Amino acid sequence: MVITISRQFATGGHTIAQRVAEKLGIAFYDKELVNRVAEQSGFDVDFVTRQGEYIGSKSLLFDIVTRNRASYEDPTDKLFRIQKQIILELGAKEDCVIVGRCAGFLLQEAGIDCLRVFIGADMDYRKAYVQSHYEDTGVPVEKRLKERDSHRQSYVQHYTGAVWGERENYNLCLDSGKLGEDACVDIIVRAAQK
Amino acid sequence: MVITISRQFATGGHTIAQRVAEKLGIAFYDKELVNRVAEQSGFDVDFVTRQGEYIGSKSLLFDIVTRNRASYEDPTDKLFRIQKQIILELGAKEDCVIVGRCAGFLLQEAGIDCLRVFIGADMDYRKAYVQSHYEDTGVPVEKRLKERDSHRQSYVQHYTGAVWGERENYNLCLDSGKLGEDACVDIIVRAAQK
Repeated sequence: MVITISRQFATGGHTIAQRVAEKLGIAFYDKELVNRVAEQSGFDVDFVTRQGEYIGSKSLLFDIVTRNRASYEDPTDKLFRIQKQIILELGAKEDCVIVGRCAGFLLQEAGIDCLRVFIGADMDYRKAYVQSHYEDTGVPVEKRLKERDSHRQSYVQHYTGAVWGERENYNLCLDSGKLGEDACVDIIVRAAQK
Repeated sequence: MVITISRQFATGGHTIAQRVAEKLGIAFYDKELVNRVAEQSGFDVDFVTRQGEYIGSKSLLFDIVTRNRASYEDPTDKLFRIQKQIILELGAKEDCVIVGRCAGFLLQEAGIDCLRVFIGADMDYRKAYVQSHYEDTGVPVEKRLKERDSHRQSYVQHYTGAVWGERENYNLCLDSGKLGEDACVDIIVRAAQK
């Protein structure tokens, strides 16, 4: 039983995923996945956390320079490659919940059966969530949310060609703002027990 | 407690919706809604069934002729108007499950609280479903499914401006092919009890 959980920022998705793993008594990979990737790639934990789900824009100069160095591997690509390898190993070997990092797309492509979940919520709920759970960074909350969405979307698009958050890519999509955390946990557990 | 269920053709959505209503002990509106609309509009049941969720293409000539007759109301528009009125009355008055007919969009727009569910499934599942549940019409199954999807999408787009089946428009999206009928029923009931 492998459950992959994609989530918009500030929907409580991380907590829901953790509680699902606890309830089912299976492994939970979020921070733990980051640690493994950091260990195997040699990148530090902060870099893996930041770059493992978000892709930055690259300058044309960077492209021209690196295109001519055959042995050079872009750090974000290297990170993705190692991350993918670890996700596929985990998915093939043990029952677990994996958060983010294109896990659902990667496992499906590799023919490994998994339950693919997406957790979203509307803007009002997410704004309130940021205000109650995160520190003020000076950036207006809505801008912050939109930037996060856009970066995650770019990352998924770049590495899988698929559209992040599009219903067709998931077996179960939940609006955590409407349903609440407890119901989301119960629903995912029920779906997994199918 | 009002639950609206949109579903792709050949996903078992009708049966799931009916079982949810039974389990919650609340009214179920699908065929019964058609009957009410037929009664109040004067259209026959077949016309309401066909035109209540699908919009046909109109010729330019039809447009030119009718545009000049102020008192003329297009039958599909009249049907939609009456259908909408009945859905809003039902949603405001009683606990129920309503299948299709833009119910979720209409209730939300009117500020009536409801749980909005979408039931989909992948093409392979739906093809097999058609083959085991419906008669062969001579039209290739995939073509038949795509036409149905396209007509439902046009109907929703025409009358609500929204995209049918897009995750953001629902609180819960279920892949009935992956999850199975029983799990879908349990999940919707759990979400409604929130």
